[in-house]
Amino acid sequence: MTGTMTRWIRTGVKLLLGAGFGASVCRVGRLGGGEQDNEGAGLLSRVPVVPVSKVQASELTVIPGGSGAVMKYGFPSLSNIKTRESYVTSYDPRTRTASWVLEKLNHVSLNGTSNRKYCEFREDDSIHPFHRSTNDDYRGSGFDRGHLAAAANHKWSQKAMDDTFYLSNVAPQNPNLNQNTWNNLEKMCRSLTKRYLNVYVCTGPLYLPRQEDDGKLYVRYQVIGQNHIAVPTHFFKVLILEQVDGMGVELRSYVLPNEPVDEKVPLERFLVPIEIIERASGLLFVPNIMKRTSSLKAITEK
Amino acid sequence: MTGTMTRWIRTGVKLLLGAGFGASVCRVGRLGGGEQDNEGAGLLSRVPVVPVSKVQASELTVIPGGSGAVMKYGFPSLSNIKTRESYVTSYDPRTRTASWVLEKLNHVSLNGTSNRKYCEFREDDSIHPFHRSTNDDYRGSGFDRGHLAAAANHKWSQKAMDDTFYLSNVAPQNPNLNQNTWNNLEKMCRSLTKRYLNVYVCTGPLYLPRQEDDGKLYVRYQVIGQNHIAVPTHFFKVLILEQVDGMGVELRSYVLPNEPVDEKVPLERFLVPIEIIERASGLLFVPNIMKRTSSLKAITEK
Repeated sequence: MTGTMTRWIRTGVKLLLGAGFGASVCRVGRLGGGEQDNEGAGLLSRVPVVPVSKVQASELTVIPGGSGAVMKYGFPSLSNIKTRESYVTSYDPRTRTASWVLEKLNHVSLNGTSNRKYCEFREDDSIHPFHRSTNDDYRGSGFDRGHLAAAANHKWSQKAMDDTFYLSNVAPQNPNLNQNTWNNLEKMCRSLTKRYLNVYVCTGPLYLPRQEDDGKLYVRYQVIGQNHIAVPTHFFKVLILEQVDGMGVELRSYVLPNEPVDEKVPLERFLVPIEIIERASGLLFVPNIMKRTSSLKAITEK
Repeated sequence: MTGTMTRWIRTGVKLLLGAGFGASVCRVGRLGGGEQDNEGAGLLSRVPVVPVSKVQASELTVIPGGSGAVMKYGFPSLSNIKTRESYVTSYDPRTRTASWVLEKLNHVSLNGTSNRKYCEFREDDSIHPFHRSTNDDYRGSGFDRGHLAAAANHKWSQKAMDDTFYLSNVAPQNPNLNQNTWNNLEKMCRSLTKRYLNVYVCTGPLYLPRQEDDGKLYVRYQVIGQNHIAVPTHFFKVLILEQVDGMGVELRSYVLPNEPVDEKVPLERFLVPIEIIERASGLLFVPNIMKRTSSLKAITEK
């Protein structure tokens, strides 16, 4: 199991990087230098004028007691942005899942009396019916309704926890992964709030290409239900960790395959250079982060 | 050939519709009634506040001599909008191609001295290098650089024609399709300017699911080059036809497979209900059109 999974990741990394691998190494190497490619920043350079839909300004600080708003380090894209009590998200109407979901965790958000027994998965009726997933789509599919923003991250408010149960915050996830290694990754994110001032977590699906027998690369993913919900081949989690002493920011980025993963494999084995995720997802993280800190340390292995 | 192609389309239609087929028929049937689902209109209902990047207001009427701007009937989505001399487009940084490209054709746009011998395919440097396609990506791939907005639609201005050669207006297209049936479809669009006041053309890629041997549905598409440009399984073209007498609007929507297509097959055979395209692409056309006319006739067969 471990061997297979590792090969998937390595294959994915290799395929994704293509000629870019050298560039990747260079780039990660210069993260700490505060250098910034303004020309290339593209989407992220426009965050100040972000067209947030259905958002009141007051909603934009989604975690109580936090020292900054959830968008402090910008958004990875500006498409179809929605703000909820516990997260900000960008929806992809073609795959019927989020492109990314961004949360901010700290000791305040993790504590409270919210209980998931009061929560139910429900359709997001802010999305056109043609592009919306339903509980029926998941029924009998063999996939869990996998939270992107985790319910247990938002005990501070029942509403905040409820909002994680919108099906727009959910993607079809292998049950073994969801209930074991992915759950462990979520727990690890929460535990990092003990060492860091704030833990920004950005989670999303990936659809990685794979070499087939003809030697060519193909993206191939299942779609489930009558609404054809895309089943991601992988998931990413990007953690932006604010140090307590204000001395800078750490970045950790994980990619896990959407298949059973042996819990014994250390989570560090899933760390990848952020560029892998940026290239594969069509999103950008680093240019925006670099606007807020001149000290970014990218942790890609342990 | 024809048989295969037709099966693809029919399969695609069947797969896409799922339980929605009944709904599709009902909906097309009520198009003429001016009924509108405001709740469901979603993205399109927000067109007045469209966050157009790098656009001067003056650019928004992209065809000279036209009686209205290219966005008269709205945009099918509001993600990563770019406006060029000859078209408006929405870019998908994950697939490295446009989600859609919208043009407005009339007798003025089709006439002029522009010549494609002065044009060269070139990278769109407004896109981050991670998410941009290059000429190298296409080299040796076996695919043409298929225009979405066609060069010959924009003889009115050399700049307008040049702008169709940005690789963000291009997708990997089967050479046989590109040079024959697709070319015929483009010619037909131009010829419709003789019968209609304005011809709005919206073109884009599709990634349609297909049933595999295990009975499940999968989306599968090749990616080419070091930047992993997605090869669409199909292309759509949606025509919004303004009648000369101001008596209303006709809608024709086509889906063609990205494979060799026998030129003898009449183009009408590729007509599909617009809902097929709306569901598969994650885009919406009808709600916006219905804001501008109470008389919409959807032509789905001849």
